[in-house]
Amino acid sequence: METIRSLQNSQIKAAVKLRDRRGRTQQQRTIIDGLREISRAVACGFPIETIYVDPAALSGPEKDTFEEVLAKVSPNTITHVTREVMTKLAFGERVEGAVAVAKLPKTSLSEIKLPPCPLIGVIEQVEKPGNVGAILRTMDAVGANLLISADGRTDLFNPNAIRASLGTIFSVPVVDATSEETIKFLRGEGIQMLAARVDGSVSYTTVDMTKPTALILGSEAHGLSDNWHQAGITNIHLPMNGIADSLNVSTTAAVLLYEALRQRA
Amino acid sequence: METIRSLQNSQIKAAVKLRDRRGRTQQQRTIIDGLREISRAVACGFPIETIYVDPAALSGPEKDTFEEVLAKVSPNTITHVTREVMTKLAFGERVEGAVAVAKLPKTSLSEIKLPPCPLIGVIEQVEKPGNVGAILRTMDAVGANLLISADGRTDLFNPNAIRASLGTIFSVPVVDATSEETIKFLRGEGIQMLAARVDGSVSYTTVDMTKPTALILGSEAHGLSDNWHQAGITNIHLPMNGIADSLNVSTTAAVLLYEALRQRA
Repeated sequence: METIRSLQNSQIKAAVKLRDRRGRTQQQRTIIDGLREISRAVACGFPIETIYVDPAALSGPEKDTFEEVLAKVSPNTITHVTREVMTKLAFGERVEGAVAVAKLPKTSLSEIKLPPCPLIGVIEQVEKPGNVGAILRTMDAVGANLLISADGRTDLFNPNAIRASLGTIFSVPVVDATSEETIKFLRGEGIQMLAARVDGSVSYTTVDMTKPTALILGSEAHGLSDNWHQAGITNIHLPMNGIADSLNVSTTAAVLLYEALRQRA
Repeated sequence: METIRSLQNSQIKAAVKLRDRRGRTQQQRTIIDGLREISRAVACGFPIETIYVDPAALSGPEKDTFEEVLAKVSPNTITHVTREVMTKLAFGERVEGAVAVAKLPKTSLSEIKLPPCPLIGVIEQVEKPGNVGAILRTMDAVGANLLISADGRTDLFNPNAIRASLGTIFSVPVVDATSEETIKFLRGEGIQMLAARVDGSVSYTTVDMTKPTALILGSEAHGLSDNWHQAGITNIHLPMNGIADSLNVSTTAAVLLYEALRQRA
């Protein structure tokens, strides 16, 4: 197997550009850090094109699992690189000896097939990849069916979102859309919309989440936009008994998603 | 009012040392960033000694509230500093024109007075100040009565924990203790102990949290230690229906704390 040794290699230069949103949009690809995350991408059938590996540098608790994964993928998928090239590819992220480049899936709402009683998450204008990743971890845990990023301020497959999700992003269907498209989709599918607002009129535990349900969360700084003030959308809140008036969006998401799971059990 | 202009001022040099745990331990003080955080410390009666202010640099959405707070505290508490001194004090944190130095409260478990049916959080060996802060935000929100940091790997009043808590750390009683002391205290007070473990035998929704309850959470990397494998401690888990086997400790805390609140409503 050939080993890429040059930092000037065009494939390496293209991969490094995936660290920027512009590069990801132009190439319609993303870059995946972390042995666990790459293993999960493979396991979930995510469209990986190349796994760059510095075999001598493979390390960490996920090493054995990862080597089993490598043994199973098509050898054409694997490209060896030197330590120097890996350092450039890893771009300051925790180096575990491998990164992967994958095509961005281009799923649109019209292609989504939902089970009979879906549980959906909607995040509007969320900015921080870390929050997107944390929400995906909880969505994976409760077995939610879809995450819609509405008017997203960060791209879903941002490497930091992938990392914060620990690779669970590959197990949960995710779609980008506008808020308007999202509302139209949810109405068309007959899914109740529960919008989390600090001044929501109904406590979250008093609504019936055993119906087809979408839990809708706003941005870290501004909450939900006026797009979601409409007939047929229920504003819910979490009780707040302390000195603060809001919770982190990923915390709110976790409490709501686990309440849905509890009611459905 | 005097303005400190020198970076060599001994008071400023001592304050900057509070950025390190060693400085905090030696001086038994901490440093508070953020106008909202300082305002909440004052409102909660936290033992602030000095608020350093660069009046021309006060900024952000919390400015008005903060100026009202300044107008009410003893003038001896306020020290003006130049922009250069503030930059040094703020130490790369988001500069909002003020930082405060406060004494560390020295509360021990023996001094804690609990209400009739307390809800307590215990975090063992948690390392990341961001997680401590996030857990405190949720504890404030549900009105929990006490956080015990057992065998803590970070100090509770780490400036990053204060910041991540958005100042809610000043509203929730917090205590450092060993795991052994914590178990002895909880047994003595007749408080049921629910230990969150990925392999816990009981789902968290099936336990009665309306009784005096302590929710016990382990470290990010290793979960709970064997200290908590004892008769009389119930191991609980959150259902995990996805590809991942664990959640972030602050997410787990939020789901458990809100379940307690739901049951108690």
